Amino acid sequence: MTPYTELEKAELEALREKLLARYTAFQEKKLTLDMTRGKPSPAQLDLAMAMLTPDISSEYRSPAGLDCRNYGGLDGIKEAKTLFAEYLGVADDEIIVGDSASLKMMHDTIMGALVYGVVDSEHPWGKLDAVKFLCPSPGYDRHFAVCQYLGIEMITVGMDAHGPDMDRVEELAAADPAIRGIWCVPRYSNPTGTTYSTAVVDRLASMAAAAKDFKIFCDNAYAFHHLSTDHEPQKNMLSACKEAGNPDRVFLFGSTSKISFAGSGVAMMAASRRNIEYILSKMQFQTIGPNKLNQLHHVLFFQNVAGIEAHMRKHAAILKPKFDAALDVLDQELSGSNIASWSRPKGGYFISIDTLDGCAREVISKAAAAGVKLTPAGATFPYGKDPQDRNIRIAPSFPAVAEIKSAMELVAICIQLVSIERLQSRN
Amino acid sequence: MTPYTELEKAELEALREKLLARYTAFQEKKLTLDMTRGKPSPAQLDLAMAMLTPDISSEYRSPAGLDCRNYGGLDGIKEAKTLFAEYLGVADDEIIVGDSASLKMMHDTIMGALVYGVVDSEHPWGKLDAVKFLCPSPGYDRHFAVCQYLGIEMITVGMDAHGPDMDRVEELAAADPAIRGIWCVPRYSNPTGTTYSTAVVDRLASMAAAAKDFKIFCDNAYAFHHLSTDHEPQKNMLSACKEAGNPDRVFLFGSTSKISFAGSGVAMMAASRRNIEYILSKMQFQTIGPNKLNQLHHVLFFQNVAGIEAHMRKHAAILKPKFDAALDVLDQELSGSNIASWSRPKGGYFISIDTLDGCAREVISKAAAAGVKLTPAGATFPYGKDPQDRNIRIAPSFPAVAEIKSAMELVAICIQLVSIERLQSRN
Repeated sequence: MTPYTELEKAELEALREKLLARYTAFQEKKLTLDMTRGKPSPAQLDLAMAMLTPDISSEYRSPAGLDCRNYGGLDGIKEAKTLFAEYLGVADDEIIVGDSASLKMMHDTIMGALVYGVVDSEHPWGKLDAVKFLCPSPGYDRHFAVCQYLGIEMITVGMDAHGPDMDRVEELAAADPAIRGIWCVPRYSNPTGTTYSTAVVDRLASMAAAAKDFKIFCDNAYAFHHLSTDHEPQKNMLSACKEAGNPDRVFLFGSTSKISFAGSGVAMMAASRRNIEYILSKMQFQTIGPNKLNQLHHVLFFQNVAGIEAHMRKHAAILKPKFDAALDVLDQELSGSNIASWSRPKGGYFISIDTLDGCAREVISKAAAAGVKLTPAGATFPYGKDPQDRNIRIAPSFPAVAEIKSAMELVAICIQLVSIERLQSRN
Repeated sequence: MTPYTELEKAELEALREKLLARYTAFQEKKLTLDMTRGKPSPAQLDLAMAMLTPDISSEYRSPAGLDCRNYGGLDGIKEAKTLFAEYLGVADDEIIVGDSASLKMMHDTIMGALVYGVVDSEHPWGKLDAVKFLCPSPGYDRHFAVCQYLGIEMITVGMDAHGPDMDRVEELAAADPAIRGIWCVPRYSNPTGTTYSTAVVDRLASMAAAAKDFKIFCDNAYAFHHLSTDHEPQKNMLSACKEAGNPDRVFLFGSTSKISFAGSGVAMMAASRRNIEYILSKMQFQTIGPNKLNQLHHVLFFQNVAGIEAHMRKHAAILKPKFDAALDVLDQELSGSNIASWSRPKGGYFISIDTLDGCAREVISKAAAAGVKLTPAGATFPYGKDPQDRNIRIAPSFPAVAEIKSAMELVAICIQLVSIERLQSRN
């Protein structure tokens, strides 16, 4: 394909008219497709249905003999701690297994930091004049929403193929003591699909931070969420922090929302023993404990990390064709046009598209007008503001392959139409 | 029985020696009984086992057609809201149904009030010089622990047969704008078993409060937890607040911890629509939603409030003999002695004993030395300090009837021994 920037005026206009006809044809189809969120499809949820059948669901006594129907167990049942400690690559006493929402654990951890500080704080964060978080972007909108809700100032930092722009992260963290945290999704970042390189992880773990209670909020949401057997190792952030002599620097989070059931999974957080003890010392006043039956049923269903891995291969078998379908359309429609680039993730839940500057919002609204809802423009950036207005997050997990093809064709048409209009207006 | 205060010196000493021999005999039995907490017994938990069998546990689609395995539904599934709204006596849109721990909902509500204020606050409570709560006592130790943890000053208020000492509550609430809340367990108060009279509920709802964002934290933990068909009506606190023109004054809390499974039930909070909307506007940043499968399974198991009532009659059939056994021992051992009084609850999970002033701590420690652990002395008062050192909370739900008889005999012996020694030392 000739890059659109090199097309003659007439060629561009002819192309635009052809695309407009295709767009109009789409409008007439009256699609109603929602690709806004990374939701598992029913077929994926079906994979864990054995957890709800009597061999597992009727069990209430843990292997250690605990009656999971009764009160107690602030940090989760022993067997769940063992399973998910291995899952997150930490020791059994470095984890708290909770209810279903890891986002709630993240929120509660930051809320606690504001009201009480973290284990190595001199003052509660809420007493400081300003609290700032580094936000590698594009990133996860709900992370940013928590910060905005809690009044934490967000500083956008770029992402490259290896993770956050570490030169910038190091410069900022060393200079400004108001910076108390950074959001990280170390594997298959939402939405770029980036896996942090070992060098990036080591730099995050060892860099100088002006705030001595600086914390990495490491949301390992896609730890085992590969699309195939082709994937790189991802260095454990807690191990790296220990090696660097900063064992208390990181909180790891994870959940089975995209492993078992999205609304009814098990969430977990891990950290150094010192961090965990501090958190439990607060948590004992807040709750009596999590749903232990659900934890037990997860343990009985998965058995061990190999069980989780085997299960995730079944997810991959469902997800891979959907990602491939979306990427095929992008390749066919846009390859060589020089008006967009997109990620080819090895896992996770998203494809990230970058358009020409200043096009994303209009593409998304054009797609919506023809029946395909995408994640709102800007959502992948702090304060919902994409400074270049170019990032589009595609969530191909939920719809069927045929729907994805259709939706992506429309998205590609919209990208071309908006881009061509931009190019035309430049002349 | 002759009141011990009227016994001759020699009679008292003879009685003491007999009791001492019985106490020594108990020590030799080497009991190990834990009556510290209001835990359901396995037989009670067994009553809900059908929820874990496939007719119910394999269901994942709500009656309204929602796939409860997937994301979404911040305030719970529609059917759970309908069921538990009726359970708490509120409208369907006046409730949030959550995960298992109502304590967490209470904590989060107060934490939110500190950081953001409640719907009618001028300032976040955390910005005030002092925040105080009225704490009718004896009361629930975990309520008081939340206040202490969050730095809320607790003011102890007495309880009588109709609920909190309302003259005192009204006087304090009207005078001190720092008083922002009151803890209430309106039915079968922990530990006294008191059901608030309609007059008390109406006074709480209508009284003048110096703080215009004063809130009643009404923990309706034992709403349907009767021990028999003999029970009084209990006026709904939200209805009362609406009638009094203070619809936003109350937060109601409840849970199925002592209905279905103590560790894996469903918790809920209810309030005016204005309060609920405010809370949801904050909650959307904190979590994606509760475990909807568990909510669905509760709905399918109980069907309706009549189903809950029928279920609670089965609980009563298990609990009533335990309460009767404990009360029988107290009657036999202590009736007429004038050294102790105790509640005869019509529901709930506790018997509350008041000894002579200054005896409770020693009784509890004496019982522990012979193998029966009771709720720690002072636990039923703010800051763990019983000003008269006289209240003992008995939790008869978990042990078997024979164990309860044995434990209560020991408790009665300890009460007599400590009381007699007090009487002797006065002479």
